[in-house]
Amino acid sequence: MQLEAIKVVLFDTFGTLVDWCGSIASLGQRLATEKGINGVDWDAFARAWRAGYRPGMERVQSGQRPWTPLDVIHSERLDEILPEFGLGSTFTEEEKADINLFWHRLDPWPDSFAGLNRLKRRYLISPLSNGSLFLLVSIARRAGLPWDFILCSDTFKAYKRDDAVYLGAINILGLAPQEIMLVAAHNDDLASARSHGMMTAYVNRSTEYGPDQVRDFEAEEDWDVIAETVEELAEKMGT
Amino acid sequence: MQLEAIKVVLFDTFGTLVDWCGSIASLGQRLATEKGINGVDWDAFARAWRAGYRPGMERVQSGQRPWTPLDVIHSERLDEILPEFGLGSTFTEEEKADINLFWHRLDPWPDSFAGLNRLKRRYLISPLSNGSLFLLVSIARRAGLPWDFILCSDTFKAYKRDDAVYLGAINILGLAPQEIMLVAAHNDDLASARSHGMMTAYVNRSTEYGPDQVRDFEAEEDWDVIAETVEELAEKMGT
Repeated sequence: MQLEAIKVVLFDTFGTLVDWCGSIASLGQRLATEKGINGVDWDAFARAWRAGYRPGMERVQSGQRPWTPLDVIHSERLDEILPEFGLGSTFTEEEKADINLFWHRLDPWPDSFAGLNRLKRRYLISPLSNGSLFLLVSIARRAGLPWDFILCSDTFKAYKRDDAVYLGAINILGLAPQEIMLVAAHNDDLASARSHGMMTAYVNRSTEYGPDQVRDFEAEEDWDVIAETVEELAEKMGT
Repeated sequence: MQLEAIKVVLFDTFGTLVDWCGSIASLGQRLATEKGINGVDWDAFARAWRAGYRPGMERVQSGQRPWTPLDVIHSERLDEILPEFGLGSTFTEEEKADINLFWHRLDPWPDSFAGLNRLKRRYLISPLSNGSLFLLVSIARRAGLPWDFILCSDTFKAYKRDDAVYLGAINILGLAPQEIMLVAAHNDDLASARSHGMMTAYVNRSTEYGPDQVRDFEAEEDWDVIAETVEELAEKMGT
C-alpha cells in the first residue's frame, strides 16, 4: 500500500457518493403530490429507471450505436417505464424533460460532503463517473461538492467499464497510474481501475439498490483502502 | 445581446486571467537569487519562453506532429532558450523539470479572483484554455479560482484556435452555442468563438506581453460585453 504517492483521488458517483434511488423516489413522490397522482411506487419506479442504465450503456460500448450521452439513455428509458407505471399519458414532453433532470438533482449520502472536503485538503479530487458533465456539475452545485475538476463519460466519449475511461483518466492527468486512486462502491469498477495500475478504495454502499441489490455487499478483493463511508476513507487516507 | 440566456461562462486563461509574464519573471528572479545567478533579464526570458507557444501548438494543429500536451511544448522551448540566456549548463534535468512547472504557478491579475466569484453566483464557470489539466488545476488551487469544472486542450486533444476546441466545448456541455460565453483578452479567440455561435466578452489586458505586445490593445469587434477587468465584466453581467 503506497498511499503516500497518491496525488489525485477520483470518485465513482452514482451509488458511491449520491443516493440515486432515494433521491429519484423522493422527487417522484413530490411531483405526484403536486399533480395529484396516486398509487405509484416511486421507489420501484427509481429502480426500474435505473435498470435501463447498464443495458443502455452496453449498446454504446458494444458499438451497436454511436456515442450517446447518459441524459439521452435516461430519457429513452423514461419513455419505456412511464406506461409500465400507468403514467403513459400523464406528462407533456416538457414535463418529461424536467423529470429526466431528476438525475441532475441527486442528493449525496450523509458522509460524502464532509469526506470530500477532508480529502481535498491533501488530494486533488474529481468524479470519474458515467454521468454527463452537466449532470455532475448540477449535483455538485446543489450539494456543494468541492470538485477540483470533472472527468466523466462525456470527457472520454465512453462508459465505465470500458478501458478507454481509465486509460483516458491516466492520460489526461499525465500521472503514473499509481498516483491516481479510484473510489467506488462497486467491485468491478475497482477491478478495472486496478487492472490499469490505479490505486483503489472501496466504500460500502450495500443498500444502494434496496431490495434489488444483488452484489457489492462487501469488498471482494484486497482493495488498497476499504471503508464504510467517505469520512472513514478520509480518516484512513490521513486527512 | 441576449445575456439572459447564458448558462456557462468559459475563460481563456493565459493573459486573460493570469499574468504569465510577470509570474514567470518573478519566479525566475527568485530562483536566480537562490542560486546566485546574475545578469539574466527574467522579463525577457519569460517573453522568449512564451514566443515558442504559438509555433509549438501550430506544429500540432497542422498535423506535423501528433497530439502533444502543452507541458511538453513548454519543456522543449525551455531547452531552446536556456543557452540563449547563458544558462545552457546551469540546471540539472530535475531542476529544469521544476522550472517547467513555473507555468503551473502563474498568479492571477488582481481582479480575476473577485470577478470569478461574482460571476459564479449566477453562471457555471470553467476555463477554456490551451493549458494542460494539471496546469490549470494547480493554478486554481494556488489562487483559489472557484472553477465548476475544467475544459482545456487535454479535454479535446486540440489547441485554440482549432475549431475542435470550440465545437468540443459546445458538444460536451450539451447546450446551444448562445448559452455559452467565452471571455478572452484576444480578439482572434473571440472571433473563433463567435463563428461557432457562442457569446463573447473581451477583457482588456493590453500590457500582457509588455514591450512585445503587438495586438489586442482594444476590442476590435462589437463583442457582446467589453470590459477592462473581470470585475467590470461581472458587473455588466448582472452579478
